[in-house]
Amino acid sequence: MTSSSSTARPRIVIIGGGFGGLSVAKALHKAPVDITLLDRTNFHLFQPLLYQVSMAGLSPAEIAWPLRSILRNQKNARVLLLEAKSIDLDAREVHVCDSEAGDTDSRIPYDYLVLAAGARTTYFGHDDWGKIAVGLKDLNDAVEIRTRVLLAFEAAERATDPDERRSLMTFVIIGGGPTGVEIAGALAELSKFVLARDFRAINARVARVVLIEASPRILDSFSPDLSESALRQLQELNVEVRLEVKVTDVRHDGVTLSNGEIIESRTIVWGAGVGATPLTETLGVPLDRGKRVIVEKDCSMPGHPEAFAVGDTAAFLHQGERALPGVSPVAMQQGRHVGRMIANDLAKKDRETFHYTDKGSMATIGRSRAIAQTGRLKMSGYPAWMAWLAVHIFFLIGFKNRVAVLLNWAYSYFVYQRGARIITGRRLRPGAPEKES
Amino acid sequence: MTSSSSTARPRIVIIGGGFGGLSVAKALHKAPVDITLLDRTNFHLFQPLLYQVSMAGLSPAEIAWPLRSILRNQKNARVLLLEAKSIDLDAREVHVCDSEAGDTDSRIPYDYLVLAAGARTTYFGHDDWGKIAVGLKDLNDAVEIRTRVLLAFEAAERATDPDERRSLMTFVIIGGGPTGVEIAGALAELSKFVLARDFRAINARVARVVLIEASPRILDSFSPDLSESALRQLQELNVEVRLEVKVTDVRHDGVTLSNGEIIESRTIVWGAGVGATPLTETLGVPLDRGKRVIVEKDCSMPGHPEAFAVGDTAAFLHQGERALPGVSPVAMQQGRHVGRMIANDLAKKDRETFHYTDKGSMATIGRSRAIAQTGRLKMSGYPAWMAWLAVHIFFLIGFKNRVAVLLNWAYSYFVYQRGARIITGRRLRPGAPEKES
Repeated sequence: MTSSSSTARPRIVIIGGGFGGLSVAKALHKAPVDITLLDRTNFHLFQPLLYQVSMAGLSPAEIAWPLRSILRNQKNARVLLLEAKSIDLDAREVHVCDSEAGDTDSRIPYDYLVLAAGARTTYFGHDDWGKIAVGLKDLNDAVEIRTRVLLAFEAAERATDPDERRSLMTFVIIGGGPTGVEIAGALAELSKFVLARDFRAINARVARVVLIEASPRILDSFSPDLSESALRQLQELNVEVRLEVKVTDVRHDGVTLSNGEIIESRTIVWGAGVGATPLTETLGVPLDRGKRVIVEKDCSMPGHPEAFAVGDTAAFLHQGERALPGVSPVAMQQGRHVGRMIANDLAKKDRETFHYTDKGSMATIGRSRAIAQTGRLKMSGYPAWMAWLAVHIFFLIGFKNRVAVLLNWAYSYFVYQRGARIITGRRLRPGAPEKES
Repeated sequence: MTSSSSTARPRIVIIGGGFGGLSVAKALHKAPVDITLLDRTNFHLFQPLLYQVSMAGLSPAEIAWPLRSILRNQKNARVLLLEAKSIDLDAREVHVCDSEAGDTDSRIPYDYLVLAAGARTTYFGHDDWGKIAVGLKDLNDAVEIRTRVLLAFEAAERATDPDERRSLMTFVIIGGGPTGVEIAGALAELSKFVLARDFRAINARVARVVLIEASPRILDSFSPDLSESALRQLQELNVEVRLEVKVTDVRHDGVTLSNGEIIESRTIVWGAGVGATPLTETLGVPLDRGKRVIVEKDCSMPGHPEAFAVGDTAAFLHQGERALPGVSPVAMQQGRHVGRMIANDLAKKDRETFHYTDKGSMATIGRSRAIAQTGRLKMSGYPAWMAWLAVHIFFLIGFKNRVAVLLNWAYSYFVYQRGARIITGRRLRPGAPEKES
């Protein structure tokens, strides 16, 4: 389990094969180092399209690409399918749990560490809500949400009681950030255009999609007029958007809001909170409220110039009023920066301050509906959606899946079909996850 | 839960949306009947390509098509996602378990019943082997096998003990019928051409694939010279074929053969036995050894002209020396026949004897490798594979997935890549299935 130890080449251990971790590895592709990339899954996930999997628009394999394929030709890098359990910064070791070695604790020593383990869903102290309201952070989450949504329609088709049917056809999405908005828009379109023709007893077109946001506007990282435009675009799809209300209770049969209202629903999706992986708590360095490592200006950890954190596991507080947002461009730019800093060390050059170049941001609301802003340019509706599409297709370059994804989209666009709407796993019931595997 | 009861239109209940059940429904698309199709899953599975999913060549959604889409425009048919628990032939009712209605027993009355519930894996009395050696009958099985195979290579990459590594890179496939041969060939190709370039510590090319067959030849439904050709084609891929040996024990760490030999392996696939669903045991009619309903010449059940069984749930003993084989052409032809018999009844015409038209059969061994026979024409190698491809593409007509499947194949063919080789589900360990969902 130890890396080849006799060599003089520095051992770089990267935890996480997302946008941040892969950028570090790629930035070092010519460096005289030994890179070990650890990940719990065997694939890189194209997270910006994860909501499409959750709404049956794309198949899991279309947005997941084996890490081994990506790094196949990079001879200084190896991939290990392992979950990091804790990090000993002083001993410079990552503790992993290798099931094959009889669940014993193994250690992987490093000369440089990059923590790029991403984010996970958090429930603001209401962990019990997690079993009811699924978040959308990984491929299993996406398939779980897809299964629950499709099963709710199936159960509604069988239901004879009107109240039960109404509850089964009501979908509550908590959180008006990009994830919540994307899911709400895609779910409204799924029911209006795809499922509408599929059922006999129910009219899927009248399914109710409710989006709940605690603040006065959705997508509040965008300018107020774009938020307003996004709101209108959602309303065109009949999404009910509730602003300035909080969710005070989440149950299997619905949610209670801070204004006392109860919404009966069997399918609740959580788009509200993300926090860093619990791994950061094993470090012993200062964390922010979201358990992210408060990094130095070069993205290293305080007191540990050989250890870095990037992307969603890092809180970078040296640019702008608040920490940099948890989006893939930040992770990728930080990853490349860290790669360069390690190369600088080897070349005896000084460390440099990380600067994030914000090329703009965009959020999609549905077919032909989106908002986008870059510098002073603001777009909404169809032009924004085309821009969104172009950017995402561009970033899928390097993934062979691009062609398949594009074809699937084009097909869905023209005939309003969704080929991926299959229910997998051995169960028939909406709601709580299956016990048996 | 009862179908619209006041109408005078006969109620047709079909259990199973496979090749047989769908053929019945489609044959009755103009008939003045009310069709209810029950299925445990929401999709029709293109079973002949299931082995491709198990070997990461195709994604699940590429061979599964929502039943609701298929029957969308057939107004006399509805689909219910329900599992049939038992059948009361005298009361003419199907008992289903509707989880939504509080797990209570619901009954669906019928005027005509078609049992088309397919086959399931059987272990010849060794049910305990089922947890270790996965069969390949449904999409969950295929994903399970894919996960186990990929995890075995991942664990081998991490392993430090040579014996453990060898055991992890040994794959045993039990049963030399079409399923076993397809899996063995595809697995040999996966390791030789796809995974070979992916790993650093192991040479995936030397993975050992062992196919075990109790009889003197593989694919014994084909002529002896074609069996011989298939054997040679497998051996070209370095598959070790063991003939005339039985498996006497299956354990997590390997199998024992009837000649005393022990093969150490962590990944064992079962391609040996199939039997009908346990549902047939609730009927009270004569069954064959495989629990299949021994049907009359018109495919009805003895003493119950209003109840039929088709495909893998039926044993049709009135043509040839043994029961018709469990292949999709039999199921489809029987389904169409039963549809016509129901229409005959409505038109006061006599029942007719079912006749199976055998258009030939084929089995694929890998890329450019196959055998095929139709009438006196026999093919093997590349021509047989092209014929196999043509037939399967043709049968995928009606599935929009055809284009995507074709593209994926073409891509794999030319660059030896497999995009679907992702490990899903929350686990890192090969072998036994995960406890948590």
